[in-house]
Amino acid sequence: MTAEEVRSLDRAHVLHSWSAQDLIDPLPIAGAEGSYFWDYSGKRYLDFSSQLVNVNIGYQHPKVVAAIQEQAARLTTIQPSFANDARSQAARLIAEVAPNGLDTVFFTNGGAEAIENAVRMARLHTGRGKVLAAYRSYHGATAGAITLTGDPRRWASEPSAPGVVHFWGPYLYRSAFHAEDEEQERDRALQHLRDTLMVEGPHTVAAILLETVVGTNGILVPPDGYLQGVREICDEHGILLIADEVMAGFGRCGEWFAVDRWGVTPDLITFAKGVNSGYVPLGGVVLSDAVRASFATTPYPGGLTYSGHPLACASAVASIQAFHEEGIVGHARRLGEEVIGPGLAKLATRHASVGEVRGLGVFWAIELVRDRATREPLVPFNAGGEAAAPMVAVAAACKERGLWPMTNMNRVHVVPPCTTRRDEAEEGLAILDQALEVADRFVVG
Amino acid sequence: MTAEEVRSLDRAHVLHSWSAQDLIDPLPIAGAEGSYFWDYSGKRYLDFSSQLVNVNIGYQHPKVVAAIQEQAARLTTIQPSFANDARSQAARLIAEVAPNGLDTVFFTNGGAEAIENAVRMARLHTGRGKVLAAYRSYHGATAGAITLTGDPRRWASEPSAPGVVHFWGPYLYRSAFHAEDEEQERDRALQHLRDTLMVEGPHTVAAILLETVVGTNGILVPPDGYLQGVREICDEHGILLIADEVMAGFGRCGEWFAVDRWGVTPDLITFAKGVNSGYVPLGGVVLSDAVRASFATTPYPGGLTYSGHPLACASAVASIQAFHEEGIVGHARRLGEEVIGPGLAKLATRHASVGEVRGLGVFWAIELVRDRATREPLVPFNAGGEAAAPMVAVAAACKERGLWPMTNMNRVHVVPPCTTRRDEAEEGLAILDQALEVADRFVVG
Repeated sequence: MTAEEVRSLDRAHVLHSWSAQDLIDPLPIAGAEGSYFWDYSGKRYLDFSSQLVNVNIGYQHPKVVAAIQEQAARLTTIQPSFANDARSQAARLIAEVAPNGLDTVFFTNGGAEAIENAVRMARLHTGRGKVLAAYRSYHGATAGAITLTGDPRRWASEPSAPGVVHFWGPYLYRSAFHAEDEEQERDRALQHLRDTLMVEGPHTVAAILLETVVGTNGILVPPDGYLQGVREICDEHGILLIADEVMAGFGRCGEWFAVDRWGVTPDLITFAKGVNSGYVPLGGVVLSDAVRASFATTPYPGGLTYSGHPLACASAVASIQAFHEEGIVGHARRLGEEVIGPGLAKLATRHASVGEVRGLGVFWAIELVRDRATREPLVPFNAGGEAAAPMVAVAAACKERGLWPMTNMNRVHVVPPCTTRRDEAEEGLAILDQALEVADRFVVG
Repeated sequence: MTAEEVRSLDRAHVLHSWSAQDLIDPLPIAGAEGSYFWDYSGKRYLDFSSQLVNVNIGYQHPKVVAAIQEQAARLTTIQPSFANDARSQAARLIAEVAPNGLDTVFFTNGGAEAIENAVRMARLHTGRGKVLAAYRSYHGATAGAITLTGDPRRWASEPSAPGVVHFWGPYLYRSAFHAEDEEQERDRALQHLRDTLMVEGPHTVAAILLETVVGTNGILVPPDGYLQGVREICDEHGILLIADEVMAGFGRCGEWFAVDRWGVTPDLITFAKGVNSGYVPLGGVVLSDAVRASFATTPYPGGLTYSGHPLACASAVASIQAFHEEGIVGHARRLGEEVIGPGLAKLATRHASVGEVRGLGVFWAIELVRDRATREPLVPFNAGGEAAAPMVAVAAACKERGLWPMTNMNRVHVVPPCTTRRDEAEEGLAILDQALEVADRFVVG
């Protein structure tokens, strides 16, 4: 097919996510390899978005492609009530890299279903109805997951499922608690969570759900001690801790799971994206042995046709093995510490529009402002249309120069594949340096 | 891996859907081809379940396997905001076989997400909040989909999402309306729906959702005229009709979509399973042009990372093309009319336990009773444990003889792949004939 055929059939027959259909012009993509993808004109883009922060192993990793081809030849699909070698292996490999005591995996097709099931498990395990989740979060777009979500994508789906209470998490740059340093932000955020539980009734709360490192809503790295504090609060009240690592897991934060950085053990971890880089749709929940025990002699009342899909699981097995063999998690950590972090810090000194840079591993945000003193965002919260034009211009400046960025509200996220080479990361940072000149023009401070 | 390795890793690390984990012993499956799968001992099973009624094209169809391998080599994944040849082609092929005026496809990973999105579209298109759905239905296990579900799998997830009202659909054998023939059942079911709308307020109702032919809850084929009547009621009140064809579509009923049999055009159709036989997780919604227009200049507020996944779409393209080339839809229709239907009718004459057989295409149910006069089910509604033993015994008798059946409550469903050969169907019916002797022992009438 030509680019025009791809485009015209797309326009005639495909409904695109989160979009006004007549106001978009989706770019036909012809291929991809490693850290790059390209269009039909042959224009190549260095990917600083990992698509939707999922291509952690890069594009078309030969070992994962081969595993898909081999499994396709052997057995594409079998239903969840049977046992299957690819599923057994994938579950073992995931349990091996999960924190101690989380030994069981429930597989889904993606992150939203992982959240739906983790919450169902928590409610049934505790016998309680309420779940606390954070503002500035994204957990998926099915009815349960979108209700738990704390960003504007929830609004159109309300009124939504009952039993969800939102609270504020730590975010020092725009502190909900008027904190002035990391320790104060941590202590006040924990106090806010305790206060919220006090007035909600902690005995009514099944789980506290949070992204270990908040993703699309800003790459918000929790202050040291925050997650430990949440864990203690949960333990005090018999509340389960659900860590949503759909985006943060599998190398993104330079760890297998982001919780490893702080040595915290949740009761449930949700995953998707990086587990197999989305080569085949796959997600799931890792359960603690205690939660698993609740469904030992009582049926677990949830499921889906493709739970533990052999083709998806085979791609996860190959991907996790490649992560081990090629040291991809450590590479992602060092790339953050030695190249991206220092590179972004340098950009912050060169561009008046940069209010803050923050992140870890291959999970970074540049927060753009009109005024460093007031911290007024470069574009307003949830801006669309003309109001969003400055960010559109920054993104366009990247794309012109062959860099595909991820932008959200007033931020550029720097979220390349975990396998990105140092010279590629430097190439992307150099393009960002040029593109940020566009942002600087809007600075008024 | 050996069977024992597969089994022991499964028992150590996999949580299975809808199951008490310590009370199951999942059979490791080694391979599959055509209408058969086999375990590690080499025992082969003729599949009268199509796994979870999804392997419509049979196992390991060479054209679909090849398409997966080729797409894997080219481009496994790309995010929804781009255009992609496999996605464009899949959308065109699905729109071509959908009723006229349904030209746009929103892709998901499976059926539950398809339902979630269809309902969101209906609510936003109409500006109304309520959705009517049927008892004796299954629509998926995410919070929205499980709320719409009308079978006991919903109970553990309640209280659930607001705005859902359940009504009774036609089911002459156990009529909710005391009807004595098909026409009476049709007319009374439509009157019941009108009455329900009257007291709910039709202007508050966004959509009526139903399985075109009810699947897991009994293979309930609507009387001629029922769906046309529902369509008329919807039109009268500006309510959208959502046809859930996750199970009934793509050849299962001997039609591309089951609605084709009655010439009814819904506003939204949900699909999954048969679209690509689950070789790669895939589902979606087909939208009418009018619903699509609601998201032309206003964003559609829903999405998922793997919407329109290239690998999944490539498998759907190959599967739909094979359906065309090999005349699979027509084969499924004739298999029902000429082999399965007459074969089951004969079983009904030979076995006192058979209360009714019903179905079409490769979508049939045998309803088992203790007493044909009272129609007392062979096992009670939603029976478990000892109470379910008669059905477990019937299933075991099939498996011993190399037939894998699908059973639900007091029914054996006969739902083989659409590609099942006549002699294979006859082989399976002969085994059923033997297994039903087990059911006959429980007859008291």
